[in-house]
Order: sequence, then C-alpha cells, then structure tokens
Amino acid sequence: MDIREELSKRAKQFNKVMCSFLPKEEGMQKTIYAAMNYSLLAGGKRLRPILMEETYRMFSSVYETENERDVIESFMSAIEMIHTYSLVHDDLPAMDNDEYRRGKKTTHAVYGEAMGILAGDALLNYAFETAAFAFNKAPLNAKIVKAMQILSRKAGAYGMIGGQVVDIETENMEASCVSIERLEYIHLLKTAALIEASLMIGAILGGALEQDVKSLEQIGRKVGIAFQIQDDILDITGTMEVLGKPIGSDEKNNKVTYVTLVGLENAQKEVAKLSKEAVELMDGLSVQSDFLREVVLYLIHREK
Amino acid sequence: MDIREELSKRAKQFNKVMCSFLPKEEGMQKTIYAAMNYSLLAGGKRLRPILMEETYRMFSSVYETENERDVIESFMSAIEMIHTYSLVHDDLPAMDNDEYRRGKKTTHAVYGEAMGILAGDALLNYAFETAAFAFNKAPLNAKIVKAMQILSRKAGAYGMIGGQVVDIETENMEASCVSIERLEYIHLLKTAALIEASLMIGAILGGALEQDVKSLEQIGRKVGIAFQIQDDILDITGTMEVLGKPIGSDEKNNKVTYVTLVGLENAQKEVAKLSKEAVELMDGLSVQSDFLREVVLYLIHREK
Repeated sequence: MDIREELSKRAKQFNKVMCSFLPKEEGMQKTIYAAMNYSLLAGGKRLRPILMEETYRMFSSVYETENERDVIESFMSAIEMIHTYSLVHDDLPAMDNDEYRRGKKTTHAVYGEAMGILAGDALLNYAFETAAFAFNKAPLNAKIVKAMQILSRKAGAYGMIGGQVVDIETENMEASCVSIERLEYIHLLKTAALIEASLMIGAILGGALEQDVKSLEQIGRKVGIAFQIQDDILDITGTMEVLGKPIGSDEKNNKVTYVTLVGLENAQKEVAKLSKEAVELMDGLSVQSDFLREVVLYLIHREK
Repeated sequence: MDIREELSKRAKQFNKVMCSFLPKEEGMQKTIYAAMNYSLLAGGKRLRPILMEETYRMFSSVYETENERDVIESFMSAIEMIHTYSLVHDDLPAMDNDEYRRGKKTTHAVYGEAMGILAGDALLNYAFETAAFAFNKAPLNAKIVKAMQILSRKAGAYGMIGGQVVDIETENMEASCVSIERLEYIHLLKTAALIEASLMIGAILGGALEQDVKSLEQIGRKVGIAFQIQDDILDITGTMEVLGKPIGSDEKNNKVTYVTLVGLENAQKEVAKLSKEAVELMDGLSVQSDFLREVVLYLIHREK
C-alpha cells in the first residue's frame, strides 16, 4: 500500500462526506454559506478526520449500522470545521495577515474582513450543530455526549484557542526571552489539542475503553508536537512550489520557532524522538494499529 | 412588584450563577480568560437568561432537584456567552468599530484586536462547553439534547450570525434600495433568533409540550423584532447619559433602520402591534405567564 495514495483516497472520501453536511448557498444570507464552503473546500490534508476515522475503525472494526456511520461522520466533519475556522481567523489582518493559504486566496482576501470574521464564527458554531446532529441518529448515546465534551474542551481556551493566545503574545516578546517550554506549550495547545481530540473521539465512538483513550491522548500529544516542529522545519527547508505558500514566512515575521531556538539538527532529532515515543505507545494499545502507525510516521516526516 | 427592581434582582442572581462557570484567570494563556471575563462582566440586562429561566419556571413551577437547577443554569450561562461573543465581534474595527459599549471600553479596545477576535471565539466555544456540562448532571437526558440543537441552530448561520451577515451587506447598499422586508429579516435573525432560543430552551428543560414550545418560538419572534425596533427608536430619541453610548450612532454610520425607513410614529405603532400579538400568544399557552408578560411589555417599551 502506498500511504500517500491511501491518504489522498481517504481525504477524497471525507470530502464527499463533508459535502453532505455543507450548508446550501441560498437565502438572503447566502454570502456566509458561500464563504463557509469556500473555506472548507480550499483543500487541506483532512488529517484530523482521517485520524478520527482510523481510531474509530481500530475499535469498531466495521461499521455495524448505518446510524453509527452517520455519528462518526458528524464528528469527522465537525472537527474539520473547527480546524478550518481556526485557519480563517488566524489569517485575518489583525492576526497573521495572510493573503494566501494552500496556494489559494484566504477567506477574508476573497470575501472581506468582516465576512472572514463571521465565516469563522459560523463554522465554529456549525461544527457544534453538526456534532449535535449525531443525536438524531443515536438518541441518548453516552458516547456522543463524551465526544462532544472532548471536542468543546480541546478546541477552546483550555486547548486550541489557548495556544493561539500564547502564540500571539509570544510574537510580541523579545526573541531572547522566548523559552523552549513556552514554544512547547503553544504546540501542545494550538496543534496537539485537536489531534488528541481526533484520536480520542474516534476511539470513544468506536467503543474503546478508558485506558486506550488515555493512551491515544498521549499519542496525539506527541504526534501534534512533532507535526508542528516538522511544520517549522519545512518553513525553513521547503520551497514555495511544494508548499503553496511563501517559504520563510516565520522568519519574515521575526517569529521564534523551535528551529530558530534549537537549530535545524536538534529540531529533527526531537521529531524523531517524539515519533519513536508515539509508536511505542501505539504498541501498548489493546488493538492493532498498523495503519495509524504508518499515517503518523508519514505525517511527522512529511516533506510538504 | 416593581418590574425594574425584579429584573435587576434576577440579573444579579444570574451574575452569581454565571460567575460559577467563569474560567479561572490562570495559566500561560490567562489573558484570554481575563478578556472573556471582562466581556461577560461588562454589564448588560441579562435578558436572555432571565427569559430562559422564566419559561423554565412556568413549566417546571419549582426546581425539583439540584441537578435540574444545574442543567438550566448551564444553558442560561451558555446563551449569555453567545450573546456576549456576538457583541465582542460586532464591535471589532472590521465590523461596527465601536470603542465603547454600555459606557465601558469594548473588549478589543482594552485587549487589542487579535485578542478581541480570540476572546469572541473562546466565548462561543465555551458556551457549547458549558451547555455540555449539563450532561454531567443529567446524563442521557433527551431535553438537554433538544436544547443543545436549538441553541446551535438559532445562534448560527441560519440564525443570529446569518442576521449579522445580511446586516453588514445592507450597510454597503444604497439607502434607497433597502426594503422593509430586508430589515425585518435582519431583525428576525440577528435579534429574535436568540430570544426565541431562550424561551424555547427554558420551556423544553421545564418539560413543556411541543405546542407550547412552538407558541413560545412565535412569541420570541415578535418580542425580538419589537425589541430591535425599540432599539432603533431609542437610538434617535435616547440620550448619551441614559444609554451609556453615543446617540445617533446609526445616523452617523448612515445606517438604514426601521425608523429611518418608516418614520418614528409608524415604528412606534409597529412595536405596539407586535407587543399586542405577543401577549395574545401568551394567553394561549397552557400555563400562567403573568410575569413573562410583564417582562416582555417592559422590555419592548423600555426607555434605555
């Protein structure tokens, strides 16, 4: 199996799933639906829903009923909506002020700043609406309740948003005052939190027991941090052509990254260490995790 | 009973409830908690949670268990968080660009624009997290599921956010092209949707039957629209001292309002008509609604 091909196949399958949840572009407020759909369909690796689906498969092994399929698809779509809204807001002029992402104009660059703010809000709100659709298929299901609590916690001020906050405050700091602990804390919240949520929610909806869910949280933590360091590495070593965005943007913004702080070689060593630890944790799970391992290794060591 | 006094008493009681849900201002990301709490505690009538609590009381009559009290309080806090985040984002430079609200500096004016965006995001996210806390007190409760679905629907692109979108697009239109239907649509989504949600969620958690919930949705619709027209009226007739914000701000922004479109007198007539219809609908409910009626009439005819 070619892992890149398989991931691309799964991303395409997910796009089809997500399309079934997209709002119709109609009514007097249709601009917001257009902006939401534009943001969601602007590409991306669909890493979070793919990871979620994979842990779901690991524990449930097959889709037992049509309804269970609908439930996991609600949450896969919801987490991608949350990831997308965070990018839309991150790109705003008052934040990173980016005109391009994945080679395409950012949402506010196309629809204007006010609509960029509102499209992000609408995506976040719609993520929870979409997750709540799951109850229609499986009313009073304790697994859905747990999944919703994890989603809201990991996406919020105690999770992803908290990471964005520390990130922004760090940008205003003297470079020499930024500690490695501070950067790791940013990665932990800003990037790892949603990866943790993806793995945990998939496992919970698949029927995993507490111990495996806890291990997957730890795995997500290591994968998320490694993924972010790799992102910083690629910002230095990548090319515009491969990434679809200007390289060296961190440097341009005078941004302190893991790489600028410890150097390229140490950063690569850290990625290797985290990836080894993640794989060891996977070995301890009560179910087979071959594909998850391949995905994780591929993502951590990706070149774009 | 003095209605103003009673509302002020209930608002204070609610503030105490909401405080129990506020995030602690600690950790590396404490700025975001400070900005969230600043926004939530900057005052306000607490109209939505008060309306929610009242319809809850109407149907449940008393708090049967400690857990039921916790459930309704989760949702009361959640809806106020959603209302607050919408104001925080509305005040941003790319939106209405307001430096003051309720006589106090707006969130972005105190914490900066990036933090204003993130504080709004965090409040919206935390609203759903807070609503999901309800499941801890009453696991697998179908009323909570229904309440959560209504909350997410009415707050989103099909509700409040949709109204903000049409509102912003209307600001860029030639004044002579703005129709009364368009303005009513904005009021319906931007203001009425959360009022409808407040009344409906209170009733549902209190155990109301479908027919009453439907009537309350209609009542919320009329009250919300009347409330918004009254707001536009006050923008013309109010004074800086009473409102705590500059008067005539709509006029300054060349904003078309119900009042500029149909004139002060006709606007007042419309408020009276909607208020009469709302009261008639309340008469048709299967339970007593004396206090709700007083609140609604007071709010619709308020002078600040």
